[in-house]
Amino acid sequence: MSLETPRMVQMANAIRALSMDAVQAANSGHPGMPMGMADVATVLWSEYLKHDPDAPDWADRDRFVLSAGHGSMLIYSLLHLSGYAAPTMDDLRNFRKLGSPCAGHPENFLLDGIECTTGPLGQGLGMAVGMAIAERHLNAQFGDELVDHRTWTIAGDGCLMEGLNHEAIGLAGHLKLGRLIVLWDDNRITIDGATDLSTSEDIKARYEATHWHVVACDGHDFADIRRAIDEAVADERPSLIACRTVIGKGAPGKQGTSATHGAPLGDEEIAAARKELVWDSHPFELPEQVEADWRATANRGAKLHTEWLGRLSTAAQRGEFGRRMAGDLPEGFDLQSYIDGLIAQPQKVATRKASEMALGAINEALPETIGGSADLTGSNNTKTGGMEAFTADNRGGRYIYYGIREFGMAAAMNGMALHGGVIPYGGTFLVFTDYCRAAIRLSALQQARVVYVMTHDSIGLGEDGPTHQPIEHVQSLRMIPNLLVMRPADVVETAECWQIALEQKDRPTVLALSRQNLPQVRTAAERTGSSAQGGYRLKTPDGKPQVTLIATGSEVHLALECAERLEQEGIAAAVVSMVCTQLFDEQPQAYRAETIPADSLRVSIEAGTTFGWERYTGEGGLNIGLDRFGASAPAQDLFDKFGFTADAIVPKIMNKIKA
Amino acid sequence: MSLETPRMVQMANAIRALSMDAVQAANSGHPGMPMGMADVATVLWSEYLKHDPDAPDWADRDRFVLSAGHGSMLIYSLLHLSGYAAPTMDDLRNFRKLGSPCAGHPENFLLDGIECTTGPLGQGLGMAVGMAIAERHLNAQFGDELVDHRTWTIAGDGCLMEGLNHEAIGLAGHLKLGRLIVLWDDNRITIDGATDLSTSEDIKARYEATHWHVVACDGHDFADIRRAIDEAVADERPSLIACRTVIGKGAPGKQGTSATHGAPLGDEEIAAARKELVWDSHPFELPEQVEADWRATANRGAKLHTEWLGRLSTAAQRGEFGRRMAGDLPEGFDLQSYIDGLIAQPQKVATRKASEMALGAINEALPETIGGSADLTGSNNTKTGGMEAFTADNRGGRYIYYGIREFGMAAAMNGMALHGGVIPYGGTFLVFTDYCRAAIRLSALQQARVVYVMTHDSIGLGEDGPTHQPIEHVQSLRMIPNLLVMRPADVVETAECWQIALEQKDRPTVLALSRQNLPQVRTAAERTGSSAQGGYRLKTPDGKPQVTLIATGSEVHLALECAERLEQEGIAAAVVSMVCTQLFDEQPQAYRAETIPADSLRVSIEAGTTFGWERYTGEGGLNIGLDRFGASAPAQDLFDKFGFTADAIVPKIMNKIKA
Repeated sequence: MSLETPRMVQMANAIRALSMDAVQAANSGHPGMPMGMADVATVLWSEYLKHDPDAPDWADRDRFVLSAGHGSMLIYSLLHLSGYAAPTMDDLRNFRKLGSPCAGHPENFLLDGIECTTGPLGQGLGMAVGMAIAERHLNAQFGDELVDHRTWTIAGDGCLMEGLNHEAIGLAGHLKLGRLIVLWDDNRITIDGATDLSTSEDIKARYEATHWHVVACDGHDFADIRRAIDEAVADERPSLIACRTVIGKGAPGKQGTSATHGAPLGDEEIAAARKELVWDSHPFELPEQVEADWRATANRGAKLHTEWLGRLSTAAQRGEFGRRMAGDLPEGFDLQSYIDGLIAQPQKVATRKASEMALGAINEALPETIGGSADLTGSNNTKTGGMEAFTADNRGGRYIYYGIREFGMAAAMNGMALHGGVIPYGGTFLVFTDYCRAAIRLSALQQARVVYVMTHDSIGLGEDGPTHQPIEHVQSLRMIPNLLVMRPADVVETAECWQIALEQKDRPTVLALSRQNLPQVRTAAERTGSSAQGGYRLKTPDGKPQVTLIATGSEVHLALECAERLEQEGIAAAVVSMVCTQLFDEQPQAYRAETIPADSLRVSIEAGTTFGWERYTGEGGLNIGLDRFGASAPAQDLFDKFGFTADAIVPKIMNKIKA
Repeated sequence: MSLETPRMVQMANAIRALSMDAVQAANSGHPGMPMGMADVATVLWSEYLKHDPDAPDWADRDRFVLSAGHGSMLIYSLLHLSGYAAPTMDDLRNFRKLGSPCAGHPENFLLDGIECTTGPLGQGLGMAVGMAIAERHLNAQFGDELVDHRTWTIAGDGCLMEGLNHEAIGLAGHLKLGRLIVLWDDNRITIDGATDLSTSEDIKARYEATHWHVVACDGHDFADIRRAIDEAVADERPSLIACRTVIGKGAPGKQGTSATHGAPLGDEEIAAARKELVWDSHPFELPEQVEADWRATANRGAKLHTEWLGRLSTAAQRGEFGRRMAGDLPEGFDLQSYIDGLIAQPQKVATRKASEMALGAINEALPETIGGSADLTGSNNTKTGGMEAFTADNRGGRYIYYGIREFGMAAAMNGMALHGGVIPYGGTFLVFTDYCRAAIRLSALQQARVVYVMTHDSIGLGEDGPTHQPIEHVQSLRMIPNLLVMRPADVVETAECWQIALEQKDRPTVLALSRQNLPQVRTAAERTGSSAQGGYRLKTPDGKPQVTLIATGSEVHLALECAERLEQEGIAAAVVSMVCTQLFDEQPQAYRAETIPADSLRVSIEAGTTFGWERYTGEGGLNIGLDRFGASAPAQDLFDKFGFTADAIVPKIMNKIKA
């Protein structure tokens, strides 16, 4: 049931007015997109989007993703107009100012109703793919009565031009995610000017080549917009709606040009726009009728929400559904008995294999995990026994063959985690974090529980050579705020790391895992903690340590060997396994000082860049690492060549002690 | 003129035999691709590729890029068979062993004839686009007589599935790079299994949607391969040749399956393949006829090379062409007089603007620069006065509108730099190095002179918020081996950085530049060096410094302000501008110790992560930085909020001194 056109026009103009006024007040921002897409957004939010402004966290709401995040005033306007508790009109007034939840780009941690943080182009659409996957998967598990919603995305030319778009739509088309609808703001303008400066692509044909349904509409004609959305909803494939729009629509002197994209329109142009739009209200004021019409749109969703609550109250799986959507692990979930078993029977395995072993237990205990790999399943060891593939025909499957799409995988995992109800993990080689780093950063910023299973974590991968050998990656990932980077030393620590990663409701984890087999270092009781402390003593000498060896992952057993040799030389040596620097840094100062005593010679050993290790080894310390690209050869030859042997390291330590 | 089919078959089988034997000897590697593409490669190299094995650096040679770099035995075989000085048969025997130039993946710095390092999927094709750009541009400048060659690429499903592929082919199609021909190894197999596990894309339709010419052939039928290549050569658009092949062709028990992709075939299967291929020679031995036939293929290119040398000897532009291809700057190129002028007339400008000013002088003096931006031309300040766009109709243009394709831009720039004759630079926001980090790494590994103009280098970008504010980026880029990361403090240092960057023939540079205006700090003569030392004293107090402030970029003027305040408190303070840590680390120990005295309190100030700064500030030092994500607000509000003011910093220093 749609309102008459004149009232719809005013509803859309409310978005235009708020957008141009807020950008003007902030003296920065992007008015062009919100003004251009105001008509499309008005139809979508008032007539199609299933949501309840009074309950932004309703599990079965439609997900709306503003992939073109620079147009943030569009979603702030929509949230305010629809009656969400925030943003308030004051928040809009303070757009882009310190402390306002109306940040330059939409941030999922600042406002309810913002499903994900967008702005880095292409990633919103990539996350929407993940949300659509989560929806169909949960639907298979919990049925139509609890899970039956759509994912809508507004995307711009930038989102479509980014390489990620190819990966995201390839995945969505292959998986036939028919609940995903992308509204493309086809305004033919980018920052540099007309799109034909840089592209000649037939976007419609490209989407069709990946098995999308494509429909076009006049983005300023309400009836035509409805027709296109109806078609998209009816089609079983994911849909692209090409909404032909005029950027900055309503600003008579600048509309249709890149001048409206990323700068305030200016007082004069805004005055002209008010005239053009027949909009008499002062900035940040709304006509009563417009306000009432917008508020009334909430009723539709509120009614659906009430019906849904009714179904939920009698659903057999009510408890489990609630747990899953709350992101809680099953009560009593604990890998400790599995770990105890490992300690009792030491074994030498690669930590990637150890990860697979832990996942065996995890995937059995946690129905919410969804695994996958970017075409390295057998190398990343991400698929455990009995896992079925999630496909167009099997929505209950819990394993995704992501293809050679690292960035697409990471973005989709962000979307799944943010949708809720599932815990995604996915693998590639650690060196290829470079292909998806922008999405890993968004996992961290968005506080999303995503587990990255990154194997082949050093020169230990051997023959594939420098393009495949991470040197700077572990350290550089440790710099990303709110991201746990864990490099376990053996099968026991790997299981501990998985337990920790799963317990993080609001931060992602990167597991850096070895290709090569590693002896089990956690066999005895002699230790001061476990992976949970980030770093702990695996070995403490009798008496005060003269040397403290701080190692990670595949270098921990080497550190133990060095310590033994040092003891033979009469040097008391302690060994610290630094599983996760971030968790270690969170420990009390006393624990940290006791674990790594400042009056011992502190030596770091990690088969990667030494840059940054001074934080733990101090000024007089020694940093054993690799500050150049690797080489192609069998792993052991490389460890020899680059000095990762007790023979090479112990003399360096002895020299330092004597010096 | 082609040989009879049976002799061609044996030439192709030589590739198959060398590939399966070398992988078997190494006990690791990828036989499937070389065996599958042996027939296509034999036709291409023996009948089409313009090259002279005796002169691998011939400027007008065709460029051949093995984008599917894991199939490295294909190119090693081709180089050896065609008569290149290396790899020798011994090199092939030592494939993937320490010291062999036959590394796991092809490395441009190990063998002549390897145009670029490949292995990270998609990037070879992305670089080929850049090579094709360089070729057409140089053709416009030097004419058909000196520059008239093609760029050929062999790519696999992985290269086509990566997001980068979308960016690369979008650019190539738009620019109508008809000299670029991609031979797609259409074997329908990826590591995880059949391609239909992860994709349903109609690749032909997608390429056509971006204005490519597409033709298919039977990749095991010589005549059909020739027909397809002829069609591709004749078409004015870039061409994709879909070569339908059987992966591992010739290995009867495993061909057509992913089992041949990335593992040795095993002795038994190799014996069966020898039978199937009617190949009686022992491993690493070649029948005389095959050897002779392959060697004879070199004559065609040698003749063309001789003719070309004749044309070169009489060409008017011979000297300039030689200089350009040698990568030498014009004699006497020096920005010093420009810099002297700046010092005489201090001004306050953003370093991105300072970069544009320097580029004004550079682009006038150096006809070899090709600039561009990933749709942020006005923000990156990369386009100087009078620059025309490089387009399908204007090959002489020196500015590329890359579109919203950061990764595609970076890969293309690598290709241009490796082609030679041009010096590419291109811009985006510093935070979006995350989108192209994999290509930046390859710039460094390949020793390619690419200049990354990365603006908006801190929270100083202000209102756009945390998604657009680099925190960890400057430090994490500093970890990449062989990459210079420069963060100049003002207009003078920016010009110095440009001079240094251009002088690096074998390493890339990232310039981290401010959005906001910065006062000129280089006004007086009082200093101990310049940007060329990486770090130098901008201010030295009377007497021994009690405090040494080490700052970069936009924080240098803040450090000077802090020093002034400290002097008012009676504390002698020195200020070091740390423009480039990599260059500073290369200075003699004495210079470094004198510049940053260990007996002073060392304080780093950089508006980014503090991780890693301990290297310069020692154990008792102080690191002023930002170890969390930023926020959306005007820049000055953010600097205030996060403590980047003298009011916030000076008391911290005073406390530390008193402690």
